[in-house]
Amino acid sequence: MNLRIVLRSLGMLLVCECITLFVPTLTALFYQDGDLSSFLLTMLIILACGVPLLLIKPKDQNIYPKEGFAIVAIGWLLISFFGAFPFYFSGAIPSFVDAFFESSSGFTTTGSTILTEIASLPHGIALWRCFTHWVGGMGILVLTIALLPSMGMGSMQVMKAESPGPIVGKIVPKLATSAKILYCIYLGLTLLEVVLLMLAGMSFYDALLHSFSTLGTGGFSNKNISVGYYDSALIDGIITVFMILSGINFSLYYFVLKGNLKNFWKDQELRLYLFILSTATLLIMINLLTTGYYTSVGTAFRYTSFQVASVMTTTGYATADYNLWPMFSKILLLLIMFAGGCAGSTGGGIKISRILIGFRSLSCSFKRIIHPNGCYVVRLNGKKVDSQTVLSVTTYFFVYMLVFFTGVLIISINNFDAATTITSVIATLNNIGPGIEMVGPMGNFSAFSDLSKLTFSMLMIIGRVEIYPILLLMIPELWKKN
Amino acid sequence: MNLRIVLRSLGMLLVCECITLFVPTLTALFYQDGDLSSFLLTMLIILACGVPLLLIKPKDQNIYPKEGFAIVAIGWLLISFFGAFPFYFSGAIPSFVDAFFESSSGFTTTGSTILTEIASLPHGIALWRCFTHWVGGMGILVLTIALLPSMGMGSMQVMKAESPGPIVGKIVPKLATSAKILYCIYLGLTLLEVVLLMLAGMSFYDALLHSFSTLGTGGFSNKNISVGYYDSALIDGIITVFMILSGINFSLYYFVLKGNLKNFWKDQELRLYLFILSTATLLIMINLLTTGYYTSVGTAFRYTSFQVASVMTTTGYATADYNLWPMFSKILLLLIMFAGGCAGSTGGGIKISRILIGFRSLSCSFKRIIHPNGCYVVRLNGKKVDSQTVLSVTTYFFVYMLVFFTGVLIISINNFDAATTITSVIATLNNIGPGIEMVGPMGNFSAFSDLSKLTFSMLMIIGRVEIYPILLLMIPELWKKN
Repeated sequence: MNLRIVLRSLGMLLVCECITLFVPTLTALFYQDGDLSSFLLTMLIILACGVPLLLIKPKDQNIYPKEGFAIVAIGWLLISFFGAFPFYFSGAIPSFVDAFFESSSGFTTTGSTILTEIASLPHGIALWRCFTHWVGGMGILVLTIALLPSMGMGSMQVMKAESPGPIVGKIVPKLATSAKILYCIYLGLTLLEVVLLMLAGMSFYDALLHSFSTLGTGGFSNKNISVGYYDSALIDGIITVFMILSGINFSLYYFVLKGNLKNFWKDQELRLYLFILSTATLLIMINLLTTGYYTSVGTAFRYTSFQVASVMTTTGYATADYNLWPMFSKILLLLIMFAGGCAGSTGGGIKISRILIGFRSLSCSFKRIIHPNGCYVVRLNGKKVDSQTVLSVTTYFFVYMLVFFTGVLIISINNFDAATTITSVIATLNNIGPGIEMVGPMGNFSAFSDLSKLTFSMLMIIGRVEIYPILLLMIPELWKKN
Repeated sequence: MNLRIVLRSLGMLLVCECITLFVPTLTALFYQDGDLSSFLLTMLIILACGVPLLLIKPKDQNIYPKEGFAIVAIGWLLISFFGAFPFYFSGAIPSFVDAFFESSSGFTTTGSTILTEIASLPHGIALWRCFTHWVGGMGILVLTIALLPSMGMGSMQVMKAESPGPIVGKIVPKLATSAKILYCIYLGLTLLEVVLLMLAGMSFYDALLHSFSTLGTGGFSNKNISVGYYDSALIDGIITVFMILSGINFSLYYFVLKGNLKNFWKDQELRLYLFILSTATLLIMINLLTTGYYTSVGTAFRYTSFQVASVMTTTGYATADYNLWPMFSKILLLLIMFAGGCAGSTGGGIKISRILIGFRSLSCSFKRIIHPNGCYVVRLNGKKVDSQTVLSVTTYFFVYMLVFFTGVLIISINNFDAATTITSVIATLNNIGPGIEMVGPMGNFSAFSDLSKLTFSMLMIIGRVEIYPILLLMIPELWKKN
């Protein structure tokens, strides 16, 4: 591996993190809650670590797949590590492990929290929590266009195969333009949500925080009972729509901007995504109405659509405690937690395109049994997906199960009930936020041991970077000099 | 599809089932518990249905993959259906859905039960329950050699790739010999266990029943508290060893018979199987000793090794209520439930060879990232596994998750707790028997609705035939005339 280019890139990443810290710093300056010094100290430390790295001059300027993977994996770890400092220095989170958990949960757009009291946080700290979601979401978009398509792996490879939009093509020359377009869409949607939430009655500060969390599909709020605090059907509706929008492949919005709505609606991943969303909403509504949990269809639709969108897009906001819903509704929510958002969105989970390719591969298997001499290929949006990609997607299901099981085993040492043990891992690995029982939408992760909290932090980062980069760090061959 | 050959084969299968019914009929004749007529009536009905099918003369005598899959899928359904009659006619199980559940659980070597009182069953009926395990196990072995290797699918394809033993080669000419060798091994091990259990103090009847269940990795017993009834370390030890033996690829015993022990020990699937068994035993022992559940290492070893072997080989016997163990032990048991036995054994689950291929495929993915231009193949026991097989194995993980999730969703309608809902599906789909909580080793499946019991029966059969055959039945193209 070309260690110099990796270190230099990490230095660049740290300087970027330092720049993002200006936002909460200005907030702290404005509100004067006593958290200003913690941000300034953090910025100093980050610069002291980042600038020397930036001065490293690599002989070979090219980033090959293995360097790319290493930058992604170490980068997300480092950013989460330094991002924990303001929480720790300000005294908002007295344990550093807890602060690291909260920061990882933020940058990976998970939204799980160890905090039991959120409403009394200083304004700067509360904003930093939600802003990490937005920055993390941005990071995922840049990953999408910059690093992963060149690596022939996973869902990003899939996007490459399917998107004739701004994403693909030769990476470097188009990178700047593509990034700009994506960021404009991201910023535009954020501003639109802020305005709409303010029109619905939120303060500017609250609207900003909740828009950061929505667009990043994160789920942090500055209210103890999440969005449920506002108890407004209009706010619920706006956030539901923006959560769903944030779970869609952002490159598809490029079609919309160009006025090519046909290409937008023809996307097979989008169709399956919307199909799962609406079917799950319908089934849960029927379950809640027939068991008498809700009596009016309108109320059932309001709370069900919000919770389904929140869980499926892996946001993690709550307006109802689905922990109290019947088991069928709870299990259905758990299942769509695994599905997650579309590839190229800020959502986590397995991703809809992987599930689509899984189905297509299965269908080919069937055809091969019926007509053993036929030749069958997997297609997505009419284009052939090469067999290496299909294999890498199906292998992803295996490694996903492996990581999931390992996580559950480590968490089980806490000796909590089975539902808490299993769903806490689902919630973190898929970057959702809440699970059920102790970690339900009205619960939190404070009761777990430090070992568990570190495990959760790792699971969040593993889930965010789609498993391979972090596992790759453990392969000695990666570290060999070129 | 060549429907005539399928119907004729099913007729043959029914006549075979009729022959196996002689064993419980003779038992009923000997003990005179009043269950004789139920067996005689069942035999009559089976003959009345089977003989006309046997008279069908197909023009094309060849069994191609699709016919093979259809025979396997419908065959297991039919045999379970007719196998339920003695339970129903004798009044031992008054509901036919319950009787079908019990019969499916028997033939698929699962061992889940809806009975709350087992010890008072008539001798013939109790023997028929355990004997279905043995017949089902035999059926799996004949599948291994006769049908599946020709179909290029799943673990059997793997066996074909790896076993230079009696299994492979041109199928038909060697079929008779191969089957004979396998059946001799199966019969030999059964007789050996019967003798050893009798020497350890069991009656001939009890020894026979428990040997049937062990070799088929089923788990039915004629005692309410399973093998725990005997409270004998010697009996526990003997059954532990025979459960482990039954989870090994039977074709490997051919090497042992030929004196080629080196080839036996060199088998990579066997090594991983023994490694998982011993590691899980060790970890659970440490957990039970450190939490003070057991105080002596000897006792901990006795109960842990039995429960681990029972769960991993998917037998399902119990000598301790692991429901009361700490969560770490319970979760570890749950995880090895998924793993299951070796390919070509009577054990269920995902199968060790699939996990091995999953790991190898993952390792190839890593190598491809580090050296993008390298060419990497998956090997098993030193032999190349072709890419189509690797894809079919990794796709299996996807379809497995799909069936699992669908099952959990249907069972959740009962509104039982999450642990019961999820582990009841794990226990049936993997052909294990007990799960945790309500369906724990000292519990049973009687409280579920009829819809759930039918779902469990289907899950057991789906798991037993390794998913594809049953799903294939739902593809309309299969039913088209050739």
